[in-house]
Amino acid sequence: MESNLKYDKHVFICTNQRVNSERPSCGEAHGLELVGAFKKLIKDRGLQINIRAQKAGCIETCELGPSVVVYPEGVFYGKVQLSDVAEIVEEHLINNKPVERLRLRFVKT
Amino acid sequence: MESNLKYDKHVFICTNQRVNSERPSCGEAHGLELVGAFKKLIKDRGLQINIRAQKAGCIETCELGPSVVVYPEGVFYGKVQLSDVAEIVEEHLINNKPVERLRLRFVKT
Repeated sequence: MESNLKYDKHVFICTNQRVNSERPSCGEAHGLELVGAFKKLIKDRGLQINIRAQKAGCIETCELGPSVVVYPEGVFYGKVQLSDVAEIVEEHLINNKPVERLRLRFVKT
Repeated sequence: MESNLKYDKHVFICTNQRVNSERPSCGEAHGLELVGAFKKLIKDRGLQINIRAQKAGCIETCELGPSVVVYPEGVFYGKVQLSDVAEIVEEHLINNKPVERLRLRFVKT
């Protein structure tokens, strides 16, 4: 089957580390911990062909970080902790139900 | 209007640099040049609120890199050069017509 989508779910985790800035940043250490936790759970479930989690630069939700975005649906999560990763994997990536308690919503002007 | 999508188009550009590996990588220098070119054109057109281009880690199309993916549609591009950026911005990001000559297609098994 030909498909536009290489991945059913493609998860980008901010690992941006600001230096000498008043603006908060998600942070490389915490971001990479999150990336590792996502990757491990996805691999443990044998889903790494169709679901990918990876690091990314700033996704511009710094004040609400650590930040994660899941495409193709474009669901952003904020204040994501290591303890939240299993729920995002099981509920959202596998069962297709975004985790509402962590979800960021945006008002377009 | 509340929307799931923070960005109408969210462009992730691989800046992964492999060291001591036989596998090719998109490369940090070229990747960051692409990021800069996308950002400049998007800003020049005043579109930076609704269109974002940013760096990302490996998107697993290394042999066809430099690699770019545009969400929410999940269109992957390969062998993207600086000279291709204007066409992707104008045709795809603004006019919503993916640039077929650069597009990667995937067969799901």
